[in-house]
Amino acid sequence: MDELERTMLFGKLAVKYSGFYKGKMRILPKVPIVDMADFSYWYTPGIAEVSKVIQKDHDQSFHLTGRWNTVAIITDGSRTLGLGNTGPEAALAVMEGKALLFNFLGGVNAVPIPINVSTREEFVQVSRAISPSLGGINLEDIESPKCFYILRELQKSLDIPVWHDDQLGTASAILAGLLNSIKLTGKNKTDSRIILFGSGAANIASAYLLEAAGFRMSNITMVDSKGILEPERDDMDKLMIKHPWKYELAMKTNGDRLKGDPSKAFKGADIVISASKSDPTTLKPAWIRSMSSDPIVFALANPDPEIWPDKAKEAGAHIVATGRSDFPNQINNSIVFPAIFRGVLDSRSRGVNFNIMVKASEAIANYVKDPTEEHIIPKMSDYDLFPIVAAEVAYESVRSGLARKANSREGFRKEAEQIISENRKSYETLFKNGLIKKLPGE
Amino acid sequence: MDELERTMLFGKLAVKYSGFYKGKMRILPKVPIVDMADFSYWYTPGIAEVSKVIQKDHDQSFHLTGRWNTVAIITDGSRTLGLGNTGPEAALAVMEGKALLFNFLGGVNAVPIPINVSTREEFVQVSRAISPSLGGINLEDIESPKCFYILRELQKSLDIPVWHDDQLGTASAILAGLLNSIKLTGKNKTDSRIILFGSGAANIASAYLLEAAGFRMSNITMVDSKGILEPERDDMDKLMIKHPWKYELAMKTNGDRLKGDPSKAFKGADIVISASKSDPTTLKPAWIRSMSSDPIVFALANPDPEIWPDKAKEAGAHIVATGRSDFPNQINNSIVFPAIFRGVLDSRSRGVNFNIMVKASEAIANYVKDPTEEHIIPKMSDYDLFPIVAAEVAYESVRSGLARKANSREGFRKEAEQIISENRKSYETLFKNGLIKKLPGE
Repeated sequence: MDELERTMLFGKLAVKYSGFYKGKMRILPKVPIVDMADFSYWYTPGIAEVSKVIQKDHDQSFHLTGRWNTVAIITDGSRTLGLGNTGPEAALAVMEGKALLFNFLGGVNAVPIPINVSTREEFVQVSRAISPSLGGINLEDIESPKCFYILRELQKSLDIPVWHDDQLGTASAILAGLLNSIKLTGKNKTDSRIILFGSGAANIASAYLLEAAGFRMSNITMVDSKGILEPERDDMDKLMIKHPWKYELAMKTNGDRLKGDPSKAFKGADIVISASKSDPTTLKPAWIRSMSSDPIVFALANPDPEIWPDKAKEAGAHIVATGRSDFPNQINNSIVFPAIFRGVLDSRSRGVNFNIMVKASEAIANYVKDPTEEHIIPKMSDYDLFPIVAAEVAYESVRSGLARKANSREGFRKEAEQIISENRKSYETLFKNGLIKKLPGE
Repeated sequence: MDELERTMLFGKLAVKYSGFYKGKMRILPKVPIVDMADFSYWYTPGIAEVSKVIQKDHDQSFHLTGRWNTVAIITDGSRTLGLGNTGPEAALAVMEGKALLFNFLGGVNAVPIPINVSTREEFVQVSRAISPSLGGINLEDIESPKCFYILRELQKSLDIPVWHDDQLGTASAILAGLLNSIKLTGKNKTDSRIILFGSGAANIASAYLLEAAGFRMSNITMVDSKGILEPERDDMDKLMIKHPWKYELAMKTNGDRLKGDPSKAFKGADIVISASKSDPTTLKPAWIRSMSSDPIVFALANPDPEIWPDKAKEAGAHIVATGRSDFPNQINNSIVFPAIFRGVLDSRSRGVNFNIMVKASEAIANYVKDPTEEHIIPKMSDYDLFPIVAAEVAYESVRSGLARKANSREGFRKEAEQIISENRKSYETLFKNGLIKKLPGE
């Protein structure tokens, strides 16, 4: 079965199962209700007193309500998966899947909130308006460059962590894989020359995250559909207005001031991180052959990588990673966001930043005890990864002054482990008791 | 223990328990997850196919996602319980209690969404923006007259049911109690003269609902802090601009064109529905003595009714109802909204209206097999009430052309019963397995 057949099969099953289960998540009480008298404190008249306490100190909403463990998954459906602008209704199905991962892997109460908005300003306004019940916001599937504006404005104006997974989650997973890759190939952060092939959400965030991790901006060369990004390129004036984030990177990266077609960037480079288009002829074997010794090739487009792993290896790649689960070294956001959110939620963090992400990526890389060319990064099924990474995130959030709640690293780890396992156990108990229906037969 | 001591005790317990449980609801998966391969249809790549189906036909989002059973509880916290404008963070604690009732009594996945908005237009805009994932909206604790504007605009522009519980829920509960009251006292709809004492959210909605149920607008007299509402009153021009809803009722009600202080309205009236202020000296015994034979007195302010039931009885009231659970005949929204929503959700209704509410109120009234003066209305603990009422609601929604999904009355009843009992069973299973902690000791 090739990838297309596989995707078609899963698509068919997804429609069938979605119609059978009608939603992937449910809400249930988590407080005891013996009889109606219990509502005297869960609701009126007692609950008024809780409101009064929170009214005096809004931070009490993280202590007296479920806010501390609640995340909204917000999208306008402008770039749903590889489908383009599907609108919010169609995006809901995808956001429910994301909510399932949030819950199953991170023990987070994630609520899909696809929104109907027409401008980026309205996106920001609506997201801000709904923030009082949220411990964090996960932005998802928003077209570029709108996504950069929205993330920046929300991070600036809210005192909860705001995360855009297509930027920050992917960048964190890339960095984690890269840290083990340079270790295996004897490369180092300060000298490695890196090509970021494709200048969308993931690679723009990666440039900043790599810098925060100790790589040098001047050693990064960014490439987009017009070739190498550099300050004298024709479209710079336009970019300054339309895409200030890319413009800024044109100024900061590419210390050698390379110009022109991608091949020029590859000569002598150590690493290529490709997040561009799903076409296995995108990255040329000749380009890889022109890289330095033991090149590292991350070809991350989905469903098809920009070069097939075997072709990349033939061309001399020492380590190859893709976005796919059926090849070694899957670079997958799903090992990142449940842990990042578990960590910022447990520390009641006011935000998230690149330093926190570096700690997360380092913890993910270190989780792999003996990394090899075929195993540079953990998998989603490495369940004990999540509390370990969450603890690093929470601890760094305390260290950087963003946390509302302090704890030791080990204290945070135990807490995360307990929350996740108690959530898993609740799920499994429903499952075992027949309260989650079995998959329907053919 | 008097009412004040009782409220203080429950307030203390509410703060204590809220800090212990940190939220009243949790989210859990409701689909089987055996290993990570299952995410191939719950998430990528399969889920893209579900998005495509919904993109072509938005109504498929009611079939292929959890939208059909999801309700947002939206408030700006401008009139939280009796506390006034607390803001959205403080309102969250109350909305969680409401979500608990929604779930426990109606099997509904209710998400509290307190919002931070500064105008009524912004309230509408934000609510509309977040509607794509919702099967319905429950508005809550919004100050008057803003609440009328918001309800009207949202009902006009959305194709899901929008409900303001302080208007529509209270009115439905009032009507249910009133139907049994007139039966017991031998009164009828067309001749009964009714005073709506207090002209806030509940009584304004009640006027329209009573009309839809067969009572006569011309037999209704509305009273507010300025006295009897009538077209020649000094403040009519101002009301026309500031409160068109009250203005309209000034034109439509009060066929006898009564004027002046409340005592004039009581003379010969059959029924008084008071939803004004929590002060047991508000309704004067002399007024009640001036009513027709066997008067019906609903004194609904919380925590203290506008007249104590024993005083009202002394003054000749035949039937007395209050908002309190420690007196007979509690007029309580909580017997209404879980059933209304179960019904409109199960029929995938595009809206809710006064005819649907009349059917609900009639079903609630009929549930009481042998009504007496002390038992005119069911209680929250009458669990089998909810599917019965939901079926009437769903069926009327089909009859009126609002439903996306048809079924027989009995079919809807069985479905509602199954959803509610499966939800209850899931909760009880968690409880029995120690996954819901016991209340902490003193």
